[in-house]
Amino acid sequence: MTDLQLLGDQAKRAATQLGLLDTKQKNQLLYSMAAAIQDNTEEILQANQSDLDQADENGIKEVMKDRLRLTKERVEAMADGIRQVAQLKDPIGTIKHMWKNEDGLTIGQKQVPIGVIGIIYESRPNVTTDAASLCFKSGNAVILRGGKESFYSNQLLVDILQEALEKNHFSRYAIQFVDDTMHETADEMMQLTDFLDVLIPRGGAGLIKHVKENAKVPVIETGTGNNHIYVDKEAQLDMAIEIIANAKAQRPSVCNACETLLIHKEVAAFFLPAIEEKLIELDVELHADQRASEYLPSATLATKEDWATEFLDYILAVKVVDSIDEAIAHINYYNTKHSEAIVTDNYFATQKFLNEVDAAAVYVNASTRFTDGFVFGFGAEIGISTQKLHARGPMGLEALTSTKYIIYGDGQIRK
Amino acid sequence: MTDLQLLGDQAKRAATQLGLLDTKQKNQLLYSMAAAIQDNTEEILQANQSDLDQADENGIKEVMKDRLRLTKERVEAMADGIRQVAQLKDPIGTIKHMWKNEDGLTIGQKQVPIGVIGIIYESRPNVTTDAASLCFKSGNAVILRGGKESFYSNQLLVDILQEALEKNHFSRYAIQFVDDTMHETADEMMQLTDFLDVLIPRGGAGLIKHVKENAKVPVIETGTGNNHIYVDKEAQLDMAIEIIANAKAQRPSVCNACETLLIHKEVAAFFLPAIEEKLIELDVELHADQRASEYLPSATLATKEDWATEFLDYILAVKVVDSIDEAIAHINYYNTKHSEAIVTDNYFATQKFLNEVDAAAVYVNASTRFTDGFVFGFGAEIGISTQKLHARGPMGLEALTSTKYIIYGDGQIRK
Repeated sequence: MTDLQLLGDQAKRAATQLGLLDTKQKNQLLYSMAAAIQDNTEEILQANQSDLDQADENGIKEVMKDRLRLTKERVEAMADGIRQVAQLKDPIGTIKHMWKNEDGLTIGQKQVPIGVIGIIYESRPNVTTDAASLCFKSGNAVILRGGKESFYSNQLLVDILQEALEKNHFSRYAIQFVDDTMHETADEMMQLTDFLDVLIPRGGAGLIKHVKENAKVPVIETGTGNNHIYVDKEAQLDMAIEIIANAKAQRPSVCNACETLLIHKEVAAFFLPAIEEKLIELDVELHADQRASEYLPSATLATKEDWATEFLDYILAVKVVDSIDEAIAHINYYNTKHSEAIVTDNYFATQKFLNEVDAAAVYVNASTRFTDGFVFGFGAEIGISTQKLHARGPMGLEALTSTKYIIYGDGQIRK
Repeated sequence: MTDLQLLGDQAKRAATQLGLLDTKQKNQLLYSMAAAIQDNTEEILQANQSDLDQADENGIKEVMKDRLRLTKERVEAMADGIRQVAQLKDPIGTIKHMWKNEDGLTIGQKQVPIGVIGIIYESRPNVTTDAASLCFKSGNAVILRGGKESFYSNQLLVDILQEALEKNHFSRYAIQFVDDTMHETADEMMQLTDFLDVLIPRGGAGLIKHVKENAKVPVIETGTGNNHIYVDKEAQLDMAIEIIANAKAQRPSVCNACETLLIHKEVAAFFLPAIEEKLIELDVELHADQRASEYLPSATLATKEDWATEFLDYILAVKVVDSIDEAIAHINYYNTKHSEAIVTDNYFATQKFLNEVDAAAVYVNASTRFTDGFVFGFGAEIGISTQKLHARGPMGLEALTSTKYIIYGDGQIRK
């Protein structure tokens, strides 16, 4: 079993060094890491083949295997991802505010790294290099614990990053990998309060819930998106169809996809058949409440669980509501505080929806699929926070920083 | 035992209402609460007398009783405190950034309330009105769980605030009180993840540690301050004496007081006797390491525990160091990340100290006693965060907010 105390202690020391690097030094190290990834493409593809062989043995589905599979192009994209992180503006050292107080003290609030970040993830191998480079750029040491499906790929990727650091005379412990996939190790990692400043889980709802319930280390909850689109009585039919089709079917497996359609009763009879026609083309299955199902011949009757389910599949729950108030109440009761959208021409409906819906991202006349750090313009993303503390919504480099007050005096004492 | 589920549910509903109030409405309610406190001065003093009687029975020390005791003036100060909160700038609704992304979406980051805040505190009755008014102004419902010492005072204060809300046709559940002092209830409150968005403990190190170790609700750690002053070899003696005396003895019971003096070996022989003379005048007891004790006749020998102890008393640990590096290493090992100070004339020493010391507030040539929301100019303080996530250092209204992305589109879908 991995000695997490040792990893933690090494990470803490590396974090201290990393916090003192200037931006140029960090960028040079990131470029070296990117080059090392590309130089080792063959080895990476071999390690990835071991993961794929394992997947075959375990009868993993083709769609999952595709997520797991690396190609020459995908390895190159990982290296490019690291270079892009190098090009992002370094938030560390920025003085966010500075002022003189009544005692004559000059007080500044400076951005500093958080320290040591733990990441527990299930996703594709590129999360390894993405997360490592984002933590590095923001001056944080990171301990990565990936899923067993991509174990060989992840382990080799971290080895390569560490060697690149060492070759450039920097501590390899800035980026570390938990080299077993035992559940006990993950659980122990969640208790590592002496060493980890924050733990970010990335993966399915089960993982997130397990981490949230068991971690003593502060957690930033990410990811699950039980998202809604509310089609108001003053919506345009064509726009509603386009947005629903996009939010549901452009990529149903992601957290910013839509799971439930709420539609105002005044337009249900006219809109629903047209929406159904489009969704059938896209192979979307409908689970409708009693009223909606009257206009949706293809639908099965929705159960109460459907309203609370993140399908991540070609399935959409549909419900007719009497008013925008009923829509907002339904959303705030069932949603996971991720992404919500209204389609309407009515000004007051937009303002009401924006003000009253409780979610990280609330949209007017746009697809929920835009909730993403790259799309928002942050240049990168470590995950999408669905909690309210520290960071909410897509998290870029800024979300990986803390602050420190620096105070310049000339002998002041408190009276 | 208090039905916390019920309190939580009521708080959540009240929070929804509170989040929709505009600033004028919130301020009017705050002024009504302030007036109600003042109008009920007699009743408050009677309830407080019950707490004081209890304290007598339990043989509580006079210094503690003084913290507990309310007078007409102190009640007036509580009401004034609420009025001052009403006058603070309302952070809610501020759009912190707004920009157009590449898809033509207009994306704004808006400040919103956190939701429902739990506060577990041991301190004086004025924390009740301070915390309640700060949470209210920032649009958050609050559930207060005070210490048993001021139970009767706290309970009546919350009753008065609730009546003022109700008289003004607003939900009394915006401010609620846990009306028993059982440990089980506090422990249950720490598990109330369905209703509490954050839990802020205020009190001694034991309380903070207990909450941190047992809470499933996200916690903002506050308060404990094992703070240091490092007197560099290029320090001015007079300034060093003034700052040490102030940081140690002006009010030793508070979290921003100094607990350990680190002094450079080159000035120890000359400075320490002068510092000792001043500290003896102030009744400060010294616990010195071997080298420091040679120059400090009054000192007893420090134990290893002394370096890790927040004395909160007229006791100062003293250690001679060989270099600023040794001072910084000692601080980063033993401190609780609260407030740290260097006294020096040397520019490079100040920059090194500011950069390398890991704490919420790092001072150059000033007393650590300034770490305080009022002193920093925030107009109020809910506590001093010693953690790195969400908020660090003195927390004013800003620390009680979250954000929400609001996105204006005109039919955008993701390609």
